[in-house]
Amino acid sequence: MAIIVQKYGGTSVGNVDRIKNVAAKIKNYWERGDKVVVVVSARSGVTNELIARAKAINPMPDDREMDMMLATGEQETIALTAMALHAIGVPAVSRTGAQAGILTDGFHTRARISKLTGGDLLDRLNEGKVVIVAGFQGLSSSGEITTLGRGGSDLTAIALAAAIKADLCQIYTDVDGVYTADPRIVLHAQKLQQISYEEMLELASSGSKVMQSRSVEFAEKYGVPFEVRSSFNDKPGTIVKKIEKTMEDALVAGVALDRTQTRITLGKLPDNPESIAAVFDALGDAAISVDMIVKNVRREDGSASLTFSVNTAQVAVTEKVVTALFKKLGAGTFRSAGEIAKLSIVGVGITSHPGVAGTLFRALASVGVNSELVTTSEIKISVGIAPEKADAAVRAVHTAFGLDGEGEVKIGGK
Amino acid sequence: MAIIVQKYGGTSVGNVDRIKNVAAKIKNYWERGDKVVVVVSARSGVTNELIARAKAINPMPDDREMDMMLATGEQETIALTAMALHAIGVPAVSRTGAQAGILTDGFHTRARISKLTGGDLLDRLNEGKVVIVAGFQGLSSSGEITTLGRGGSDLTAIALAAAIKADLCQIYTDVDGVYTADPRIVLHAQKLQQISYEEMLELASSGSKVMQSRSVEFAEKYGVPFEVRSSFNDKPGTIVKKIEKTMEDALVAGVALDRTQTRITLGKLPDNPESIAAVFDALGDAAISVDMIVKNVRREDGSASLTFSVNTAQVAVTEKVVTALFKKLGAGTFRSAGEIAKLSIVGVGITSHPGVAGTLFRALASVGVNSELVTTSEIKISVGIAPEKADAAVRAVHTAFGLDGEGEVKIGGK
Repeated sequence: MAIIVQKYGGTSVGNVDRIKNVAAKIKNYWERGDKVVVVVSARSGVTNELIARAKAINPMPDDREMDMMLATGEQETIALTAMALHAIGVPAVSRTGAQAGILTDGFHTRARISKLTGGDLLDRLNEGKVVIVAGFQGLSSSGEITTLGRGGSDLTAIALAAAIKADLCQIYTDVDGVYTADPRIVLHAQKLQQISYEEMLELASSGSKVMQSRSVEFAEKYGVPFEVRSSFNDKPGTIVKKIEKTMEDALVAGVALDRTQTRITLGKLPDNPESIAAVFDALGDAAISVDMIVKNVRREDGSASLTFSVNTAQVAVTEKVVTALFKKLGAGTFRSAGEIAKLSIVGVGITSHPGVAGTLFRALASVGVNSELVTTSEIKISVGIAPEKADAAVRAVHTAFGLDGEGEVKIGGK
Repeated sequence: MAIIVQKYGGTSVGNVDRIKNVAAKIKNYWERGDKVVVVVSARSGVTNELIARAKAINPMPDDREMDMMLATGEQETIALTAMALHAIGVPAVSRTGAQAGILTDGFHTRARISKLTGGDLLDRLNEGKVVIVAGFQGLSSSGEITTLGRGGSDLTAIALAAAIKADLCQIYTDVDGVYTADPRIVLHAQKLQQISYEEMLELASSGSKVMQSRSVEFAEKYGVPFEVRSSFNDKPGTIVKKIEKTMEDALVAGVALDRTQTRITLGKLPDNPESIAAVFDALGDAAISVDMIVKNVRREDGSASLTFSVNTAQVAVTEKVVTALFKKLGAGTFRSAGEIAKLSIVGVGITSHPGVAGTLFRALASVGVNSELVTTSEIKISVGIAPEKADAAVRAVHTAFGLDGEGEVKIGGK
């Protein structure tokens, strides 16, 4: 007799059979007396089809009209899911984002939730009905249909779970949970039983594609524990929650890999704090995230150079931004120094844990990988490495931290 | 500088190129300073696709969820149409049925408009914007998305035209207008410049597929003249409006053909008014429309027989209804006596005009067509004829009433 919010992504509701499969899963919870709220995305492919049609009509479509159009994707799925539940004898009713009281600001295509009333959701649950809510969408104060941007349906589920004080929030997706490494690279990668919000956030920002950071941040902020699990089997997934760890618990939770980075080197910069700050201010103003920064000073002329990595898709805009800055500074050179892979180990307390960095670099050395770029946070160490050696490096690091296994291992906390 | 409501059906907005074509048409009116409200349907095929997907999930889908799903069709089209206008420099904004203040009762899939506020439509028009409204949909008093049923988008356009006192209401479709007969049957059929509401209604109920009766009735009730014209060319269409006719004007406006009728004969009925009334009450209660009724009394036993036509799709339910009644009456036989075609001539005053019936039957006789079933109204005479002779009969009648021509003829009124 729990209140459960379940979210099913686009792949999970991708076609008629999969929607029926989702309905059967929901029925299991409903039959044992749980109150179930279901958040669904658009069927996989539908959003891309809609965008393609819009761009064929107008290469620069208006954001408001994009939202008007995109919101139809989830609206179709909620109706189909309700029909599928009716077909197997489960009373259910669908709700658009607006009807579920998901109120947002007016920033179309990337709206933020400002308030969540739930509409008549609790009344319908108390009548014994399953309520199906359209993910990804809301209503602005001026009555406009808005969408929440990438990861929006996860956010809808977590925000609803917070609003109605759900006992459980389940994010159903096409993977079994959060793994110690990408199982396509590391054969002995293991599914984590649980992971802290912070670790999940670092994994998300380090190339693990399970969830967008935004939803994890929201869950952390409002203290909503949630489970990431597969809609294609009945295995338990990974619980993401607040975990208090002591020094003794400190372990590497996982190894992530991001192949989309490019190394940039800016040379001949005046070596003073103002000009270095000006570089990062300019990049920040253009919403360019830089990582793994190394600064060197050239002995010959006293000029500074900065090497860092940016997302490969942002190399062109980075060049534009720094070239403009060089004019102001009266100095500077830009060089795109090739693609790199970013390998990260993530785990609460690892930075302060003795021996972790040593283990990491020994493992990299064992497969002949050198790294010029390194960055650390409280719970993450990232290294920039040659892309062609990335898979071997991930496997070596995974083994070195004792993550290889056959079954599931319990990592971090009780 | 007129206020114009334009409605484009599913074929007119069927794909990206056609939506661009529609946008170009709208721009012509907007450029000359008109205030343009556009009502669009779902792209042709989309509604059927949605219904097929729903039925694959649940053969008897819930009406409320059907409306939730079907309303997405028009919502996509309004956004695409707005984007197409933006692309050619025309300011435009889309509105769902709910946003346009189209309020309905709560009868899902066949809601009736209860009130139409227009929302902020006039404000947006006064800003110089084209407003694109989703046809076919509305909002019930309990905040549910409803749909208006067949012909709903035409109804939206005509109701909007009435609400904002539009100067002109144009129904763009895939035919050039209303013809004196189906041009696929009658080579010399002519497009009518204008036609009265009553004639249009009789044509609609006599097999002419241009518009549903419901929208024409609404237009007549609120005195909204409208034009039926093609979205694929720039020819003027047919104006449907109130036309006062004198005896001298009385002429046949057109010849319609409905091939979907089946002749039913009920035999051995008690020949008294009560039992005959019971038959029609039972059929009426089951929403079965009967037409062209003939009653005979059998001399041998004094029993009555009724022969009439029903829509072929309703033969099975007709048999069920009358068989149940026969048990109560203690008598009666049912016979489905084969498919027939219903040929109708329509024109204000024709029933009272001398010679019209004679001309009709002479024309039928000239191509060897006999008719057992005949029905007349103030402005229509219908005959049930053999389907295999229907095309020849329509051509002969069209010629006999002087409707053949090369160009357009002016029929009825000034």
